[in-house]
Amino acid sequence: MGRLISLVEDGHPALPEVMAALAPHQGGAHVVGLTGAPGVGKSTTTSALITALRSQGKRVAVLAVDPSSPFTGGALLGDRIRMESHATDPGVFLRSVASRGHLGGLSAATPQALRVLDAAGFDVVLVETVGVGQSEVEVASRADTTVVVVAPGLGDGIQAAKAGILEIGDIFAVNKADRDGADDTVRDLRHMIQLGNREQSVDWRTPVVRLVATSADGIPDLVESLAAHRNWLASSGELAARRQRRAAAEVEALALAELRRGFGAECGLVPTDLAAAVASGDSDPYAAAHRVVQRLTQEPRRQ
Amino acid sequence: MGRLISLVEDGHPALPEVMAALAPHQGGAHVVGLTGAPGVGKSTTTSALITALRSQGKRVAVLAVDPSSPFTGGALLGDRIRMESHATDPGVFLRSVASRGHLGGLSAATPQALRVLDAAGFDVVLVETVGVGQSEVEVASRADTTVVVVAPGLGDGIQAAKAGILEIGDIFAVNKADRDGADDTVRDLRHMIQLGNREQSVDWRTPVVRLVATSADGIPDLVESLAAHRNWLASSGELAARRQRRAAAEVEALALAELRRGFGAECGLVPTDLAAAVASGDSDPYAAAHRVVQRLTQEPRRQ
Repeated sequence: MGRLISLVEDGHPALPEVMAALAPHQGGAHVVGLTGAPGVGKSTTTSALITALRSQGKRVAVLAVDPSSPFTGGALLGDRIRMESHATDPGVFLRSVASRGHLGGLSAATPQALRVLDAAGFDVVLVETVGVGQSEVEVASRADTTVVVVAPGLGDGIQAAKAGILEIGDIFAVNKADRDGADDTVRDLRHMIQLGNREQSVDWRTPVVRLVATSADGIPDLVESLAAHRNWLASSGELAARRQRRAAAEVEALALAELRRGFGAECGLVPTDLAAAVASGDSDPYAAAHRVVQRLTQEPRRQ
Repeated sequence: MGRLISLVEDGHPALPEVMAALAPHQGGAHVVGLTGAPGVGKSTTTSALITALRSQGKRVAVLAVDPSSPFTGGALLGDRIRMESHATDPGVFLRSVASRGHLGGLSAATPQALRVLDAAGFDVVLVETVGVGQSEVEVASRADTTVVVVAPGLGDGIQAAKAGILEIGDIFAVNKADRDGADDTVRDLRHMIQLGNREQSVDWRTPVVRLVATSADGIPDLVESLAAHRNWLASSGELAARRQRRAAAEVEALALAELRRGFGAECGLVPTDLAAAVASGDSDPYAAAHRVVQRLTQEPRRQ
């Protein structure tokens, strides 16, 4: 399985065949995204979640998305150390995947790595994004259920809304709930969620779970909320809808990559001279875009 | 000008004509992105910057990108109140633009709004992104110069690297520099930047400026750093390179939008039934992507 994920990361030419073979074995895993700002305790929460899910006999895979450091080309390793206690458990699979280039977002390989783990029969696949940035929004678009971990001191509800986290969380976990300000954070979140539910008339009541992940306090509540959300997804039809949106985005990205390869262009679909003309004011973006579309749909492609 | 930007936000059918007319008048403005986590004082910094640039006789435009609240469909207004003191100055243009849907990213309209302001002859266009998330990375991809505002208490260098901010800043501003921990933050940033410069051999020496934006302390240093970076961009050829990359991304996005319109598809370029087939395992993403490409390049489009 590790080798399959390496194939995915390397963009191996055999991937289309591999993915075709895995297609009939999709859909069994509950894909859970776990995100939040640096320092809130995502890795500790992940570790405690693994322990709890294992005690229920569930097989658990973790994809930890590390931002590759711009300076070393590598990834920050600190957070993985906490996972070592699970590394010898055959019911647990841990994998750190590089984030996409210097942008800190999820790797393009993530959806396919999820396919490998799903087909391998894991009951729960946790995708933990380290850091903030694009990854937070992306993990929500890849997961069945998104858990947003926050810590007291995040600030008031307005700050939470600004940070965009309210929109993506199916479940909120207030970690370090033994600290000052935890009650305020829980209350603010509940208040904002209530407003949101009223306006959006979503029939899932987003829970706010209190955690002290270092001592596993509250982890059973989180596990219960995860199961409840999974059940709601299935019974409401939202699971199929989310997975269809996910598939559409995945297919579109692959189609775009195929188109780009077909043109062998350095600047994506846009030839360098055309980009330069727009930058210098000799052309305008709409006219240039129309030329790109014509070239795409009318001329024979190289490849 | 306000009306032109509204046309842009509404995606008015006359936009291609408008952008063609504006094309020859591009390139004069220094586009400065200003970003950072919530609460670091971005708006206060923006306001102090406006005052300083105006005292040099420069015309300044500000695009403030607010995350639209998922609950009201509107934008958070608090930060705009600080700007009121500039609202009556004819040399200052302030505009709050909605962020893209619920994702908190820059609006697709941002590049075109920048074109309007550039053509209108502003010397400096500040793009202030409120909140964290996708907008931080995107603003860096849209700006000539990116200023990352941080505050003491952000954490150590590792946390900064995790947050992905080191990669996007051309200039760092440590705001609230009169607070405890400011020296540590400045030192950590300088250390990380030094490591980065050595490895990447970039010949721009990223400055770390200390600010107390509420009293405008340090703002002259920030203004000087902005001018120095603009000069470096021009003399190194990096300005043309950045603007060409920006144009390529803008044109590709418009081309993709034109393609999507051509198909009238709900799921972007991917027909609903194909997305559903991939979600259910009846098809796999590569096979589906190939069908999308074939449909794109071989069949006559509707439109």
